[in-house]
Amino acid sequence: MTIPKFLENPIDPIRVEEKSISKLLQEMENTGYQGRKLGEVASIWKDMLGDDVTIMLGLSGAMVPAGMRRILSYLIENRYIDVLVSTGANLFHDMHESLGGKHYKGSHLSPDTELYKHGIDRIYDVFASEEEFRSSDRFAMDFANTLEDRPYSSREFLSELGKTLSKKGPCILSTAYKAGVPVFCPGIADSSIGIGLAVGRKSGKSKAVQIDTIKDVIETAEIVMASKSTGVIYLGGGLPKNFIQQTEVTSSIFGHDMGGHKYAIQLTTDNPVFGGLSGCTFEEAQSWGKISEKAKKAIAFCDITIGLPMVSHALIGMKRKKAPKFDFSNGAKII
Amino acid sequence: MTIPKFLENPIDPIRVEEKSISKLLQEMENTGYQGRKLGEVASIWKDMLGDDVTIMLGLSGAMVPAGMRRILSYLIENRYIDVLVSTGANLFHDMHESLGGKHYKGSHLSPDTELYKHGIDRIYDVFASEEEFRSSDRFAMDFANTLEDRPYSSREFLSELGKTLSKKGPCILSTAYKAGVPVFCPGIADSSIGIGLAVGRKSGKSKAVQIDTIKDVIETAEIVMASKSTGVIYLGGGLPKNFIQQTEVTSSIFGHDMGGHKYAIQLTTDNPVFGGLSGCTFEEAQSWGKISEKAKKAIAFCDITIGLPMVSHALIGMKRKKAPKFDFSNGAKII
Amino acid sequence: MTIPKFLENPIDPIRVEEKSISKLLQEMENTGYQGRKLGEVASIWKDMLGDDVTIMLGLSGAMVPAGMRRILSYLIENRYIDVLVSTGANLFHDMHESLGGKHYKGSHLSPDTELYKHGIDRIYDVFASEEEFRSSDRFAMDFANTLEDRPYSSREFLSELGKTLSKKGPCILSTAYKAGVPVFCPGIADSSIGIGLAVGRKSGKSKAVQIDTIKDVIETAEIVMASKSTGVIYLGGGLPKNFIQQTEVTSSIFGHDMGGHKYAIQLTTDNPVFGGLSGCTFEEAQSWGKISEKAKKAIAFCDITIGLPMVSHALIGMKRKKAPKFDFSNGAKII
Amino acid sequence: MTIPKFLENPIDPIRVEEKSISKLLQEMENTGYQGRKLGEVASIWKDMLGDDVTIMLGLSGAMVPAGMRRILSYLIENRYIDVLVSTGANLFHDMHESLGGKHYKGSHLSPDTELYKHGIDRIYDVFASEEEFRSSDRFAMDFANTLEDRPYSSREFLSELGKTLSKKGPCILSTAYKAGVPVFCPGIADSSIGIGLAVGRKSGKSKAVQIDTIKDVIETAEIVMASKSTGVIYLGGGLPKNFIQQTEVTSSIFGHDMGGHKYAIQLTTDNPVFGGLSGCTFEEAQSWGKISEKAKKAIAFCDITIGLPMVSHALIGMKRKKAPKFDFSNGAKII
Repeated sequence: MTIPKFLENPIDPIRVEEKSISKLLQEMENTGYQGRKLGEVASIWKDMLGDDVTIMLGLSGAMVPAGMRRILSYLIENRYIDVLVSTGANLFHDMHESLGGKHYKGSHLSPDTELYKHGIDRIYDVFASEEEFRSSDRFAMDFANTLEDRPYSSREFLSELGKTLSKKGPCILSTAYKAGVPVFCPGIADSSIGIGLAVGRKSGKSKAVQIDTIKDVIETAEIVMASKSTGVIYLGGGLPKNFIQQTEVTSSIFGHDMGGHKYAIQLTTDNPVFGGLSGCTFEEAQSWGKISEKAKKAIAFCDITIGLPMVSHALIGMKRKKAPKFDFSNGAKII
Repeated sequence: MTIPKFLENPIDPIRVEEKSISKLLQEMENTGYQGRKLGEVASIWKDMLGDDVTIMLGLSGAMVPAGMRRILSYLIENRYIDVLVSTGANLFHDMHESLGGKHYKGSHLSPDTELYKHGIDRIYDVFASEEEFRSSDRFAMDFANTLEDRPYSSREFLSELGKTLSKKGPCILSTAYKAGVPVFCPGIADSSIGIGLAVGRKSGKSKAVQIDTIKDVIETAEIVMASKSTGVIYLGGGLPKNFIQQTEVTSSIFGHDMGGHKYAIQLTTDNPVFGGLSGCTFEEAQSWGKISEKAKKAIAFCDITIGLPMVSHALIGMKRKKAPKFDFSNGAKII
Repeated sequence: MTIPKFLENPIDPIRVEEKSISKLLQEMENTGYQGRKLGEVASIWKDMLGDDVTIMLGLSGAMVPAGMRRILSYLIENRYIDVLVSTGANLFHDMHESLGGKHYKGSHLSPDTELYKHGIDRIYDVFASEEEFRSSDRFAMDFANTLEDRPYSSREFLSELGKTLSKKGPCILSTAYKAGVPVFCPGIADSSIGIGLAVGRKSGKSKAVQIDTIKDVIETAEIVMASKSTGVIYLGGGLPKNFIQQTEVTSSIFGHDMGGHKYAIQLTTDNPVFGGLSGCTFEEAQSWGKISEKAKKAIAFCDITIGLPMVSHALIGMKRKKAPKFDFSNGAKII
Repeated sequence: MTIPKFLENPIDPIRVEEKSISKLLQEMENTGYQGRKLGEVASIWKDMLGDDVTIMLGLSGAMVPAGMRRILSYLIENRYIDVLVSTGANLFHDMHESLGGKHYKGSHLSPDTELYKHGIDRIYDVFASEEEFRSSDRFAMDFANTLEDRPYSSREFLSELGKTLSKKGPCILSTAYKAGVPVFCPGIADSSIGIGLAVGRKSGKSKAVQIDTIKDVIETAEIVMASKSTGVIYLGGGLPKNFIQQTEVTSSIFGHDMGGHKYAIQLTTDNPVFGGLSGCTFEEAQSWGKISEKAKKAIAFCDITIGLPMVSHALIGMKRKKAPKFDFSNGAKII
């Protein structure tokens, strides 16, 4: 029998023996299903680090209450990512911990109406204190009061907040501020930070800060246009994924067709069969020109709280070829 | 044997015989699993229509390309809902069809890089024409140019757009404009409408319209505070669900604790075990005070393109007790 | 612009107006995502009924406790299916109801350890009485005692059981017995029926009936070989799906390559990305030769308790072209 | 503020630094969502190893093609499990590799009708050669011919097969044979092994071996009754999970209520909301008495190809307190 071209690379069953997390992920690349995909996700991230590429990470879900905040700071600090697009919740929860608030181990089988009476907010199997949250709300309001009465892009706003927080405990925003990593949150109204701004404005206690999210659209497209190429990392889907995906469309309409993101990886638990952007495949994104025809790409269907710890530990010691340095003084530029 | 209290209501197996969709859904309430839940979703919606309650619908996903736009207009026109919070994509796609653009039956097994060469954008098994989309992009830009150079809440902006579109084919925004149903889109930057505004601004071709999403936070909370009680309907999760959920938190901080939404139904395919807000249970929401302790509530795990057609047909002929009439001239009021 | 070939069939948004379930499903074929798939599932089933084809249905899950038993009997009675392959649980639960036992509406949020103390078994949101179940167990044991001390294929065993049950209330097995529809259950050991046989044997209270499941393999392959063509319907996945799928492999090794099933539809909530047979695509099955290259096929990701009621009501009044008549006196034949 | 009792154990965000896989899983126990659950799964398995407990593992899916076979052999060899209940597919695929056959890295985006023409069978992103498979089919047939013309329980049959295979390359069955770990496969008819037996019988080329699966029911219940306590591990759901779960029911009817399994862990991607046993919670199982009220239990929603490599590496070096030694000469006993 002539072995057809399809039968060239045998699956290599994993042997159980002492090894590093990085080595296990490499071995998983020679298995099947989502184990292989997770191995590929780690491998493609490493490829990005060795290329001249701007790495944009989209963060959704409620990852900070689940204990992922130090991993995210680590990725920023080591410039394993260059741009962060996040939901407001993750940034609020992270700020909350840097201000001394906590999240607590709870149970997903809790009596929720009783929790309510005790002022406990539940996020699946994580608890938080409503009273502690209100204290962080007030911090956000007071912070807003220090700003000028003009529109800020979410990036400007969060950069100022990161600067302020750098005097508090370490957190995503302060780490990003120090590392020169811009953080965008175009859905900031949909979070406790947005609530804080709304309460400040309505009560007249703080200035009527406006978040100019259209400027976010422009700046992220400018970043893409200023980059030699781009790599994207999605932890979950939602607004952050779509917002980074659409930079290719926007820059194309701006007259600079970048040919799609060159690298693309995602950890998600969403299923493409329901038509949502969160779970859609990178192949689908190729039809839109959002992902390059030749992109290295992999999606692993895996809870982020499993996949992110594994993959981040596999990056330990990796050297970044060249991290972009941004200048936002007159539009977004790489200097 | 004494039958324990747990064994009071037998499952009633469905008989196959001619019946209406509404009748089938009623029968499904006496079965199990997600069939029962879907029956409950329809039943609770009917309960809302008979109560003095402001009904807020959160719409995520890409439901318009999948043929759900006339159903949404029907719900608005008949005031089976009072407030719509949507992703930008659904509003853009809907506007696109009202301008003469189309979505097309495709296949989820398409050669995507070939589609790209033909200018076809794929959304799972639906196709769209990139060229047709660009035409709608330009419409959005031209529309923006008719606005004043000041911040608009997304509601104001979409109300103006609905007014303009009411001269075109029928669509969600024009129907909402005529029916007095406010439409909010706090993540509008994350859509082709946002791209249109960004391109208009950067090119200098249209005015630098700003979308004041913090005002959206205030207005939605004011709507809740002006209502006797509220009912919420979530088609998918994402930003629209969270944004409506947080109105209870915001109004509470504003000093009016409304005690949580009184009715809550959702169609979703997200799983609570991954900690995201999209798939979280209404029980979890009770711990936050977002859903009333005594709320009627049901989540059906079901694709919206299956559940929504069924449930909407079950509403045919239902009378609304009293639909709120809004006045936004000086904050949001119900008159 | 020349419209590319990809843009020929526009999505036709559904209008809400009075219509039959069958009509709604037809309209859903012109929408997208799983709504379209469910429409296709109904349509392909109708196509089967008009062709010369043996229709095999694989039934997994616990569908009878959820109120699906009369639908299944309806499908058998009207010969909308010709062969049933089931898990043992569905047959046991159905027998249980025909003997006067019941399933009850419960809640998925029940205190399970308390339920245990009250003798209540929970199946998601359905309750059953352990005591009632034990009574049905004893019936199975007594029935086994009426059999001869020899190996039975599961089909023979279940045919005898159907004959016996036809003196009780109507049920799947008695309906199948009367309609000449063979029922296979190759995993019968894995159910309360299997437990009943085991208890009978170990206690010496009934005969040591053996279930010859290898004979099931032979008979199902013979049915396929005796058929002009085959259509398959999977409600869930599991053993019943795989067992029907493998008939194409077995008959091919027997020397009669039938070219794969000609029609194939499935309702499932399993995701192909995890590599399991339950959720695998019919395209994957084509690589194995289990599904014909030209097969009409559709999988809808939808809970069976939603999809089955809808699709079965869409079949009302359909005429079957020709239902096969089986003879098992000397191997499986169609006469 | 008095901290309520609910707020005692803060989430401990993971720091990225060199550590063992075992250490990472321990840290994940102090995070949230499925990451925490996976940590708990590893921890509970370790607890089992230190207790006087018979450990039964249920294996479904197609784990061997995905490179999990050596891990399974490792678990058997080190007596980290005592009893294996498997689908036939996993055992066939494993035998196939021990006979020199292979599985190959493929793509889930393959042209399946072309694969068919090349004799390639696809399992998601894994390929196999139909010709190689047929060779293993023949081995199964020839092996069947060496048996006696009498009923075998699947355990007896697989023990004989393991003995024969121990002269070939190492595999699950030969490792189990040497380690004294019984392997049950009550759905063996539903696999290539079953097809092999069917073809052998129909062709008259091998003896008419019968698999007495009712004997499997009795033996597994006897094992449970002979054990001080039991722990269960489910990789996926399906028949293997249910078959092990029902041992508690069977032994109770046999007159020995064991009080439910004492430890229970599962890796699965099935969702309880659809009512299936595969995805049902261990709380639900408590209502049936299958899981002890005081059991240590955890389910992680995670692909097995991710979770199993991680958890198995965390077990390296663990000592087993006491592995049971089985005697099947006259019913199942522990000696």
